[in-house]
Amino acid sequence: LNIALLAGDGIGPEVIDQAVKVSDAVAAKFGHEINWTPALTGAAAIDAVGEPYPDATHEVCVAADAVLFGAIGHPRFDNDPSAKVRPEQGLLKMRQKLGLFANVRPTFTFPSLIDKSPLKRERIEGTDLVFLRELTGGIYFGKRGREDNDNTAYDTCTYTRAEVERLARKGFEMAMQRSKKLCCVDKANVLETSRLWRETVQNLEKEYPEVQVSYEFVDAVAMRLVQWPNSYDVLITENLFGDILTDEASVISGSMGLMPSASLGEKTSLFEPIHGSYPQAAGKDIANPLATVLSAAMMFETAFGLKDEAEAIREVVNKSLAEGVVTEDLADGGKAYKTSEVGDWLA
Amino acid sequence: LNIALLAGDGIGPEVIDQAVKVSDAVAAKFGHEINWTPALTGAAAIDAVGEPYPDATHEVCVAADAVLFGAIGHPRFDNDPSAKVRPEQGLLKMRQKLGLFANVRPTFTFPSLIDKSPLKRERIEGTDLVFLRELTGGIYFGKRGREDNDNTAYDTCTYTRAEVERLARKGFEMAMQRSKKLCCVDKANVLETSRLWRETVQNLEKEYPEVQVSYEFVDAVAMRLVQWPNSYDVLITENLFGDILTDEASVISGSMGLMPSASLGEKTSLFEPIHGSYPQAAGKDIANPLATVLSAAMMFETAFGLKDEAEAIREVVNKSLAEGVVTEDLADGGKAYKTSEVGDWLA
Ligand SMILES: CC(C)[C@H](C(=O)O)[C@@H](O)C(=O)O
Ligand SMILES: CC(C)[C@H](C(=O)O)[C@@H](O)C(=O)O
Repeated sequence: LNIALLAGDGIGPEVIDQAVKVSDAVAAKFGHEINWTPALTGAAAIDAVGEPYPDATHEVCVAADAVLFGAIGHPRFDNDPSAKVRPEQGLLKMRQKLGLFANVRPTFTFPSLIDKSPLKRERIEGTDLVFLRELTGGIYFGKRGREDNDNTAYDTCTYTRAEVERLARKGFEMAMQRSKKLCCVDKANVLETSRLWRETVQNLEKEYPEVQVSYEFVDAVAMRLVQWPNSYDVLITENLFGDILTDEASVISGSMGLMPSASLGEKTSLFEPIHGSYPQAAGKDIANPLATVLSAAMMFETAFGLKDEAEAIREVVNKSLAEGVVTEDLADGGKAYKTSEVGDWLA
Repeated sequence: LNIALLAGDGIGPEVIDQAVKVSDAVAAKFGHEINWTPALTGAAAIDAVGEPYPDATHEVCVAADAVLFGAIGHPRFDNDPSAKVRPEQGLLKMRQKLGLFANVRPTFTFPSLIDKSPLKRERIEGTDLVFLRELTGGIYFGKRGREDNDNTAYDTCTYTRAEVERLARKGFEMAMQRSKKLCCVDKANVLETSRLWRETVQNLEKEYPEVQVSYEFVDAVAMRLVQWPNSYDVLITENLFGDILTDEASVISGSMGLMPSASLGEKTSLFEPIHGSYPQAAGKDIANPLATVLSAAMMFETAFGLKDEAEAIREVVNKSLAEGVVTEDLADGGKAYKTSEVGDWLA
């Protein structure tokens, strides 16, 4: 298994280390061999070569069968609107150049952690939804700039029918494998791009007659996600709405540090925890590695079709939670294990 | 007091009726006289004159000192992406023509209703935040259309420095009257318009040295709003982010039917409940009128500077909650009063 390893910034390297340990252990057990090829990205890459997603890194990713990614971002760029190079640009360039058009973000609850949620138990019990966020189009990649002596700024949101259809098809397929419920999230009462989304999804309905499709406005979904998250199953949406809603949804489980994600593409696919680079914790060996470990599980399953391997990882993660082998964010007054100790235990 | 009365669609007319009763009662008590001038809007206006915001209605609004508004929207337009005239267009046209650039949306909890929230009590106790959403710019009003044989759609988000500054100043002023904390919500790591927002707000900081300003990305705010809503006070944001986040925030209190709003403008100001037209309940005399009644309170205070009158309305609303004179959504197994009965009681 050829895997590109992009640790990135902040706690990235630490959590990635644990995912590597666990992946190697599971590979050994099931008789696979993993070739890890590390490459630079994010602020770390800016410091080393002046670019957040260097060509050399791109080569490594293209050559690999999958990419395991840590986190990107550094506070020194955050409050400087004039910074010329930003770590986030690396992320966006990577998504675009690798054609990672579908970001898959499951949100589910862990029975043992359900009371950590800010939401009441009865509202979230049984929640098991998945967002499919379009990742290489929309206002993220449209034309933008300034006019009128820098006094006017603009950004353009663009979608083609083909881009929408590609993402929507994945949504229908995923719905077929789950409960056959699909929600198309848009703002078709205002935006032309949303009307194209709605139109395109409506046209696909006849190809998937078993799937029950609902169309909801993004503002209504932002509301209902908190009110009744377990009323959703598969949700598809454009890039910016997906950014906002998937982060909102990540709160439901009460344990952002546990949520994995996959980004499916034309050239390869990429797996990463949904949490950020958490710079305050960097280097302290305290960050929760489980989201990254569970991202590795998604990688085994999605990129390599290795379901048992993925299941083995999920099982040992559940066991660590049940036995309290957890980092401080989940320790609840009990013993707090180090990041590396959790990784060792899981491996 | 010259007030334009736009009842609109769905439950709009019913809830507006109660706000009129209560306003008239408070006016009589404090020695004011109200001239109500009704005018058509929404689907009701489309049916009558083919337009959701007719010129005649605009004249009425411009001539009035304030506008009291019910709700807009009808399901027969919702799933028809090709409909040529939509009720929502009326809303947008009204906002634009009246220059209603600042939408003020408070979110607070009612001690007696706090357990209705999907969020846990300890997360929301003490929440008292207010969003200032820019309402006449951004992607709502930029150029949009189709190209390439209808196969490509685009929407443009535009902001001028003057538009941002006007809204931001209101935010700073509101922060000065509250806890001197201001959060600027944007997506400056991606969008040029957001960078203009951040720049403009940063430039204003020196004029309001006492206000402590934070800058947060919209995705992070979507998360923290659910995690720790009471960590926020005044939040300013552009039109679309405001649409999504204010609806999300409305869930916090557990009683969307109670949340009022104001839209401040150049020509007049408008007051409306944040809930929609709730067509399923239309004509049944069951809708909760309190959000509209509390919007009337905001009107007395904001449009006419009549604080005692506003306070009197808020007090009687609290009393109705405490004594259980409430509609079915709040009845909790107790007696459910009709919309009109609640209005009578309050008046
Ligand atoms: C860092 C940022 C550009 C990125 C995005 O907005 O896509 C992040 O929020 C994410 O969701 O991966
Ligand atoms: C109906 C719709 C156009 C409107 C908006 O998006 O502004 C509504 O959601 C609102 O928030 O008032």
